[in-house]
Amino acid sequence: MPLILITNDDGIDSPGLVALKQTLSRLGDVAVFAPAHSWSAAGHTKTMHKPMRVRRGALADGSEAWVTTGSPSDCVALALLGILDRRPDLVVSGINKGPNMGEDVTYSGTVAAAMEGVVSGIPAIAASVDGWEGWDFEPAARVVEQVAREVLARGLPAGALLNVNVPALPYEALKGVLVTRLGRRVYKDVLIERKDPRGESYYWIGGDPPDGEPLEGTDFWAIKHGYVSITPLKLDLTDYALMESVREWNLQLAR
Amino acid sequence: MPLILITNDDGIDSPGLVALKQTLSRLGDVAVFAPAHSWSAAGHTKTMHKPMRVRRGALADGSEAWVTTGSPSDCVALALLGILDRRPDLVVSGINKGPNMGEDVTYSGTVAAAMEGVVSGIPAIAASVDGWEGWDFEPAARVVEQVAREVLARGLPAGALLNVNVPALPYEALKGVLVTRLGRRVYKDVLIERKDPRGESYYWIGGDPPDGEPLEGTDFWAIKHGYVSITPLKLDLTDYALMESVREWNLQLAR
Repeated sequence: MPLILITNDDGIDSPGLVALKQTLSRLGDVAVFAPAHSWSAAGHTKTMHKPMRVRRGALADGSEAWVTTGSPSDCVALALLGILDRRPDLVVSGINKGPNMGEDVTYSGTVAAAMEGVVSGIPAIAASVDGWEGWDFEPAARVVEQVAREVLARGLPAGALLNVNVPALPYEALKGVLVTRLGRRVYKDVLIERKDPRGESYYWIGGDPPDGEPLEGTDFWAIKHGYVSITPLKLDLTDYALMESVREWNLQLAR
Repeated sequence: MPLILITNDDGIDSPGLVALKQTLSRLGDVAVFAPAHSWSAAGHTKTMHKPMRVRRGALADGSEAWVTTGSPSDCVALALLGILDRRPDLVVSGINKGPNMGEDVTYSGTVAAAMEGVVSGIPAIAASVDGWEGWDFEPAARVVEQVAREVLARGLPAGALLNVNVPALPYEALKGVLVTRLGRRVYKDVLIERKDPRGESYYWIGGDPPDGEPLEGTDFWAIKHGYVSITPLKLDLTDYALMESVREWNLQLAR
């Protein structure tokens, strides 16, 4: 039986994690390592300057889980560094409440946890639903199960992961599956200044939820049109095309 | 005069920030927004679920700076969302104590701050020194000044930033400048279990500092051989080569 490690960034109490656990249990053994609380937009962190706690807990369905005080990527690191007694064959992170598309993937705790698997040489999937509340995680869980089955059978190249976004629709209403590139986000963040009871300012990053440019071929286009979006991502951020241009600058040290 | 926004992930008290400020002041106006404390391996975060403080402070040389309770990328967001009264022409993050090479760039708060500039359409540079203590930031600051001068004059393509690593050597001992790709890290993390005074376990991520595979053409090779490494990075993490393979899986929804 393959071993699948799952985590998320919404925390141990998220119904998305339960749906994922139940569905992936059809494919193999599933170990759950989840943060004790929500870590939205946590990025790819490694907690090195303080210790972490790891305790046995349970999902809402009563099944066993590990709960940690670390971030989503810390959860994966803790599992792989020795709390799990065997090496997983696949890391799956999610199912996130809210999509992770375009530049979101650089902030996303969900994607970061998948990256942590990839750093250790384990294929990984990040999964998110394009909705914020009041929907059912079941359709997305069924999609992730299909993707996970393929990844277990075929593997992924070193350094790669799959970023899956699913529209908030019933499974039967999903139009199909598209392999996409990352689109571009249009963030609408606004700085909001407030005064504390002592008259001192503090600031929130607020504003409307971000848009995305729904160009054909992108994750935004797929989701907008009712398709599941699968975007292959790689940890090698090198901009190879730009290397040549920068070489032509011919930077010399002063001598 | 161009406006250069600088930040770092070692915090307002880091001498690397002072060296950067002093050197870049030759090129334009410099605004400093720095975290109140160190944020190593903080990743690309956006603090949305709690407010942040911003106060006027000073660098070790007495010059004016803004100090925030946010992460390095939050510092850039706070500056750009309205605390700065004009839009910077360049974001420079660093000079980090310790290199940011290979997969480090996915964890690095230094690189994340540069990414935050790029998300807002501003060219950015992340700068790090390959040493942990007891060296002089001056050589690296001179190098960053040269790179910043070029970026101000030439710009960068949308979505790109430059990741600069400098050996911990006197300027005259630097061999030259190489434009590199990201290499591969070999992490040596180890899980360390301790007991608290009540006998409960807690865990540290410890172990030796990571190595890198010093293949020719990589950032690791350049640094190991005494060269400044400039790696162009892009925020588009799409693995275009893998898209075609995943399309061939021909994933279909159950109907």
